[in-house]
Amino acid sequence: MTHAPLDALTPDDLRHADSYKWTKYPEGVLPLWVADMDFPVAPGITRALTERLSRGLGYHQLHGDAPLMARLHAKLRGQGLTDLPDEGWVHFLPGVVPGLYAAVRALTSAGDDVITMTPIYPPFLSAITDQGRTVREAPLQVTADGWRIDWAALDAAVTPATRLLMLCNPHNPTGRVWTADELTRLADFAAQHRLWVVTDELHADLTLDGTFTPFAAVRDDLRERTITLTGPCKAYNTAGLGIGAAVSHNPALIARLARAGQGLMGHPSALSVTMWRAALEEDGTWLAGVLAYLRGNRDFVADFLRERLPQVHFHAPEATYLAWLDLRATGHGAGIAEHLLAYGLALNDGATFGAAYAGYARLNFATSRAILTEALTRLERALT
Amino acid sequence: MTHAPLDALTPDDLRHADSYKWTKYPEGVLPLWVADMDFPVAPGITRALTERLSRGLGYHQLHGDAPLMARLHAKLRGQGLTDLPDEGWVHFLPGVVPGLYAAVRALTSAGDDVITMTPIYPPFLSAITDQGRTVREAPLQVTADGWRIDWAALDAAVTPATRLLMLCNPHNPTGRVWTADELTRLADFAAQHRLWVVTDELHADLTLDGTFTPFAAVRDDLRERTITLTGPCKAYNTAGLGIGAAVSHNPALIARLARAGQGLMGHPSALSVTMWRAALEEDGTWLAGVLAYLRGNRDFVADFLRERLPQVHFHAPEATYLAWLDLRATGHGAGIAEHLLAYGLALNDGATFGAAYAGYARLNFATSRAILTEALTRLERALT
Repeated sequence: MTHAPLDALTPDDLRHADSYKWTKYPEGVLPLWVADMDFPVAPGITRALTERLSRGLGYHQLHGDAPLMARLHAKLRGQGLTDLPDEGWVHFLPGVVPGLYAAVRALTSAGDDVITMTPIYPPFLSAITDQGRTVREAPLQVTADGWRIDWAALDAAVTPATRLLMLCNPHNPTGRVWTADELTRLADFAAQHRLWVVTDELHADLTLDGTFTPFAAVRDDLRERTITLTGPCKAYNTAGLGIGAAVSHNPALIARLARAGQGLMGHPSALSVTMWRAALEEDGTWLAGVLAYLRGNRDFVADFLRERLPQVHFHAPEATYLAWLDLRATGHGAGIAEHLLAYGLALNDGATFGAAYAGYARLNFATSRAILTEALTRLERALT
Repeated sequence: MTHAPLDALTPDDLRHADSYKWTKYPEGVLPLWVADMDFPVAPGITRALTERLSRGLGYHQLHGDAPLMARLHAKLRGQGLTDLPDEGWVHFLPGVVPGLYAAVRALTSAGDDVITMTPIYPPFLSAITDQGRTVREAPLQVTADGWRIDWAALDAAVTPATRLLMLCNPHNPTGRVWTADELTRLADFAAQHRLWVVTDELHADLTLDGTFTPFAAVRDDLRERTITLTGPCKAYNTAGLGIGAAVSHNPALIARLARAGQGLMGHPSALSVTMWRAALEEDGTWLAGVLAYLRGNRDFVADFLRERLPQVHFHAPEATYLAWLDLRATGHGAGIAEHLLAYGLALNDGATFGAAYAGYARLNFATSRAILTEALTRLERALT
């Protein structure tokens, strides 16, 4: 497969007025921050959307689109989420973030504690704190082999008021694909403490190495206590068409989540439904090409940092297009993102991923190799 | 203007799998229920959406699209909503229903009373009751000239615990376009009782007769206590692309509403933004054609009922494409919608618009004259 179309992307092509990523910062800044890719949408998805425009845009199947449900059910089964019931297993969402908020609202009460492993995608934290619950952070530990679950930190974080474990699998921002062994031990932990589990599996299709395992696949009794959040927008680069789904083997949990968002959540748009249906009909060629390009970029980042910026601590992600960089040894701490901005590079500030992560940054490498090369060159200039 | 394209619509054209309206009931039933139109989308909107698909579908301007805001500000000013501030005046919504829920959540507390004038679009009622507030119904009165505000009923409905008046202007389902005099007296009532006001003005562009006046235009001090909900989806027939806006002269109210929905509400999709921008760029020709066709259909309904079903009490709407039918004199009460279904006609059951409206039905006349004629013929058969 040739990557010529992705290699040829230039900032001038990408900086259109509808792109949040490319317009938030002044022209000249390379925006390797918010998690969408600089790549075009799969042609099959564009075709399906274009075709859909030839029909009316009135109310669509607001209570669940049958072909979408059938394809999603089959896809999840293929990923290891077997034995989902035929009814009541899914509630569609306008995005995964509303699902995080609704799950916290459905499964906990104000004043309860919620455990999550940090660093973590910031809406995990705000879904807890915005709704009057308390975050119990169980920081991951970093080893010579990369990011690992700190079992002692989990034991220390759990309290009698803890009701919910919020998991990110694959994990944003470290890119870890949790192994079946790790997930089984997490399931044991959740069972021991009678926790509900919400697992955000939005990045599953962006697994670069190894095998993705759904959390709800590892221990039968735990799947009755688990809500899985999924959606097409990361792998198919359609974040502008917000849509997602909450899925569970336990229909009562789905009903609770739906009630928690009732009225406020709205429905995914008709065109988002069309997009997801089309994504589920893809034969995998487009995604395989994207994954190959992302692997190349990931390895390029790893090589660049090892050779040119060895003081940056980095473990290559097994999934996602996100590089989680520990820049503290370069002498930077809080305010690192602002410092980089002065060198023409916009990354996500690590401090938003947990209180302990000032001096870290998240870099989005889903761009052309040329833009990535220039971005890393600016990073080097900013840090040396 | 010729209406040939609209006249030519057939059930076979309309019954596509993505249409909720045309698939909820068995084939053969004429669906004149949920409020979208059987008409195609304006060509300018389809063009804009098609063009948008040629660019990326990553994150769009999540915190407000500047061209959309500028056009909406200008359009509302032209409709009489003058002096909106430049900042903080708008919060985009995934639809007007989430706006109703968020407004109730923002402006009242559990246990408070909320006044609304019935019959009313059912989500007004559920936004109150689903969130633990109490509905205080002020029924409209019907006079020889049509539906009127019952000022005595409003006085009787208000309690010391009443915090909010929820208004629908133009009014769904009666189709009343409230006059400036009526709105001024409502504003006086709200001022006297220190109520917040939420006014759903979604149908403003579907005014068939007379002049639409925004509630927030009638009394300067009241506009500080008012949130207006608006959106393109009714007039431009794009309910599948849910988007709306909460607008106020008082930015503090908008901030409260935004906080009330925070996290759960999601963002309108990128393509919904494109659609609304395109709708605001329309020169009015398409809409004028639709309004002309709707006026013809409305008059046809009125003539048909007067001549063939004089026992049906009906006052022709001044706005919307909804006919609110009092069928009680035909001997029908609760269960009227089911009765009509047996005759191949799906209408909305009046009982969902307020407890007193069993035996009423709402008929959506935004369809071809031929389908409408057949529907009314079935209505006659069902009632005689």
